[in-house]
Parts: sequence; structure tokens; C-alpha cells
Amino acid sequence: MPAFCAAADWGTTNFRLWLLEGTGQVLAERESDEGLRACIPDRFEKVLERHLADLGAARDLPVVIAGMAGARSGWCEAPYLETPAVLTELARQAVRVGIQGRDVRILPGVCQDHAEKPDVIRGEETQVLGALQQGQDGGVFCLPGTHSKWVEVKDGRLTAFTTFMTGELFDVLSRHSILSESAGAAEADLQGSPTFLTALREVAEGEAGLMERLFSVRAASLLHGQSTEEGRARLSGLLIGAEIAAALKRYRTDGPVKLIAAGSLAETYRAALSAAEVEVLLLNGKTLAREGLHAAARRIWGDRTT
Amino acid sequence: MPAFCAAADWGTTNFRLWLLEGTGQVLAERESDEGLRACIPDRFEKVLERHLADLGAARDLPVVIAGMAGARSGWCEAPYLETPAVLTELARQAVRVGIQGRDVRILPGVCQDHAEKPDVIRGEETQVLGALQQGQDGGVFCLPGTHSKWVEVKDGRLTAFTTFMTGELFDVLSRHSILSESAGAAEADLQGSPTFLTALREVAEGEAGLMERLFSVRAASLLHGQSTEEGRARLSGLLIGAEIAAALKRYRTDGPVKLIAAGSLAETYRAALSAAEVEVLLLNGKTLAREGLHAAARRIWGDRTT
Repeated sequence: MPAFCAAADWGTTNFRLWLLEGTGQVLAERESDEGLRACIPDRFEKVLERHLADLGAARDLPVVIAGMAGARSGWCEAPYLETPAVLTELARQAVRVGIQGRDVRILPGVCQDHAEKPDVIRGEETQVLGALQQGQDGGVFCLPGTHSKWVEVKDGRLTAFTTFMTGELFDVLSRHSILSESAGAAEADLQGSPTFLTALREVAEGEAGLMERLFSVRAASLLHGQSTEEGRARLSGLLIGAEIAAALKRYRTDGPVKLIAAGSLAETYRAALSAAEVEVLLLNGKTLAREGLHAAARRIWGDRTT
Repeated sequence: MPAFCAAADWGTTNFRLWLLEGTGQVLAERESDEGLRACIPDRFEKVLERHLADLGAARDLPVVIAGMAGARSGWCEAPYLETPAVLTELARQAVRVGIQGRDVRILPGVCQDHAEKPDVIRGEETQVLGALQQGQDGGVFCLPGTHSKWVEVKDGRLTAFTTFMTGELFDVLSRHSILSESAGAAEADLQGSPTFLTALREVAEGEAGLMERLFSVRAASLLHGQSTEEGRARLSGLLIGAEIAAALKRYRTDGPVKLIAAGSLAETYRAALSAAEVEVLLLNGKTLAREGLHAAARRIWGDRTT
């Protein structure tokens, strides 16, 4: 079976590429750390072509891309759709990259163009599109990470979303603030531990507790001999707890929260959401990205397998 | 009139020294950046003696010190008083430094030894003691800064307090996070500007808005062409607004909030508190520290002027 298209999820720090059949079946795949940060403007095409060649892709195989490659600082800007955004429109609004010999399209991100709470998303919307392809009918999605995204979907529309800087806050506070002495580099990872769960509960009554509790990470080490491992678990619990409390207040749902995550991050958020007595449906983000890209490719180039 | 004592406010980044008469009148004073960070353990005595010599202090003049010099990582640890702490007890619990030829006492800080919200304070409690000496009868004190402190005083007792990492959050986020592109170094200072006040209002309904709004500092620059100056004002407004909302929720007062601050920080917090429709009484922290130290010295060494 010949390849129908190539699909790339091109984020800030990662690059993933698949050769797909028309059915979405994977023929071959590659992954590297050549994300946006590693690509100066004129390197995108070279990186893509090298990986395509390594996978044995035809010279005219079309490529669909989602993620930060479409940012202003990326390869070729793909302007945002605005909320409420019909997710199948991502394909129609894709931008064709001005290069010779290959049809490369970059999917737009989505923006929330409010004066008060402006926000942007690039890449995660394609994972949500993938979830809809899998038969998810909407609901509330949580995509945790450096910049966690909470996304609300109704009737195929991305109606609202919020970015939480949870992972980055953990990083800058544990490395660059006074909390580095109490929650800096540690040997063990106690996320999901009793200390983590206690911190979660402390901020669960609403987010009111985060600002007035951050410094307790240091005070507990001074007063109670809290270890660095516990300090990290406490800081993580306070930040993730504040994120979840704020998100659940904003995005109410009767069904489960659809958690798009993998590895230890998935386990940490599953524990945190369960502690908040929220049902969780765990979905695989890598698979969803691929399926979202495939769905977009089918819209752009039709079903060339039939 | 000979000096009654010397008094030092010895913090993390600053050192202030006064020669005082028994009445509290200032005979001479010095200020330097030889705070805790600049002093390796065996330098404290040398720094102090050099400044005392420069001021012409007698070789046996007693010295009272408040602040981080009494921390575990400082000159000589002065264990914390616990809340509720009678502020006049600071003098009685002062620790005498084990050096030859001079009576040097370091005042303790205060800790809040709760399992859930442990907290520590060192230096600010002496400013609050100074305010009580000035005739303030208690109430709620706000001492903004890298680590803002809100302190509640009832009947001469420091009953509760909270540290907010507001200034440090601004610093690490504007320098080390993705927000550095939108709120990094700028030429003008727009604190107190309409952007600042709008951000304050956005988080004023409770602190719920901070976590979900931080990323808007970046999104507003991407979507609305917000300048770096406005980005800084927005970030500052969100952080200070969240601090004030949480603090006012915890520390209710019928009277004014007693703001111990100076310069642009005083103006920024005065604007923020006024926006929250809170009456403000501005007090001078440097004067209060000196008066708190003088009051403690009188308790330790009696009234040697009579």
C-alpha cells in the first residue's frame, strides 16, 4: 500500500513524523528533538526533507503539519481560528508553505480573542480533533504539561480553553527562586505521595490558597525539616491543585475529564483529578495527534485510496 | 549626649545601622548593601565593627540587631517566637552573640508553626513593634516586597501572618519564563497605569483568576500587540491583585490597612489597595525598624539616660 500522506506534529521541543495510508494506518514513523527551538527559520524544510527521505517517502508526497511550526516564530505562520472554532475547519484554513515540489500544509492554531482573557493554542487542538475522530463527542479535555491546556468542546466546536503555566511555574520556582533550596534537584519523585495529595487538598477549596501557600514550601523545610523530595511534591501539589481547582470551576462537566497525557504526568494528573473526585478518561496524545492530522489530510486531499 | 546603643536592621540584601540616644534620637547612621547574602559567616562581626568605628561608637556600646542576621544561615541563630507572639517579648528572647568585648543581641523572628500553612518572618516583626511604639493599636499591616508579608496584630500580639512571593514571582517569571518575551526588561514603568489597574480588577473577585490569567500576558502580546511595558504592568497587576485579594479575604479589618513601604512600591500598593476600596495608612518602614529596635534595646538594657 503506498503512502497517502505524511503527517507531522511539530512542537516547541519535539518533532514527530508519520507516513500514513489513506485509512490512517501507520507505514513508518520518526521522532526527534528538532522542535521549534532547534530550528532556525531556514532549517524547517531541511529537517523535514531529511526525515522524509529516511522514511523513503516519495518526493511529491503531501505533508500536513500541526503545532508550533505554524507560529509567527515558526516555519510559516498559520493564522489562528477564533473560538468557537469548528475543528473540521482546521483543514480548510491550513496554510500552504511556499516551497517547490511538495505540497506542505500547516494547520492553524486557535485563539480566544477576548480583551480580558486572551489565549492561544497550537497543536493541542489537533489532538482534540483526533479525539473527536475516535468518537469522543465533546466534553472537557485536560492536556497537562509545561503549559497545561484545558479545552471545552461542544458539538464539534472548540468553544473555550485556558492555558495554565503549571509546569513552567514548577520549573522556574524550583530552579530560580528561594524555593530552590527546599524544592530543587532531588533524587526521588514523590508526585502522587501523601505530601502531594495533602498539598492538593489544601488548595482544592478554590484557588485562593496558592499565593498564600507557595512560601510554605520553604517554611516547612525550615520549621519541620521537610526534605527536598517532599518540598518538590508539595510545590507540585500546590500548583497542580490550583490548576485543577480553577479549571473545574470554569469547565463544569457531567462526564469524565478527558486526560490527554502519557507516562508519569498522566499518573500525576490522574491521581490529582481522582482526589478531586472527578472521573478520568485517559487518552493517548500521540495517537490523537496522528489521527487529527490524518482527518485533516483527508479533508485537504480527499480520499485518494478509493 | 552619649550614645545609648547601636541598632541594626540586617536583612538579606541591606544593612542599616543607627547610633541612638536613650530617647531614640538618632546621633548618626549608616547604610550599605552588606546584607546576609554578602556576608560569609565570619564576616558579620567585621562588617559591624567597621561601621561602628566609622560612626565613632564606643568599643563597649551595646548593639541590638533585627532581621536575617538571626537566621540559621546568618550570624547567630535567634530561634523564632511562635504566633500568637507578644511583640515586647522579642527583647526578652533576644540571643546574645558569643563574642568578646561587646554586648550584641539579635532579636528573634516569628514563626507560624502550623502543619498546613507554616510560615516565618524575620525583621518585619520589628517594624510592626515600631508601629506599636508609635501608638498604632494593632490591625492589619502590609509590608510589600520580594516576599510580601501581611501581618495581623491584636492587643500587642502578632496573631497571624502570611508571606506572598509576589515580588519574586514577578522577577522569575519576567526573567526566566516564556513571559520574558512579553514582560521582560523595559524602558518605562507602567505600574499604576490603566493596564495595571485592569489586571488588578480581573483577579479581584477572588484569587481564582491568577493561574488562569498568567499566560494572558503572552497571549495579549501575540494577539493584541501589547508592548513589553504593558506586559510588565499586566503581570504586576495580576500578581499584586491576587496577593491583595487573598490577603483581604484572610485578614479582615474595619480600619485602614497599614502599609509599610517606601518609594514606587508604596505608590503601587497604595494604588492597588485604593482600587480594592481599602483605606490605606502609609508608614515608613525604615523609621519603624529603628523605633522597634530602640524599644527592644530599652527593654534589654533599661533606660540608661535617666
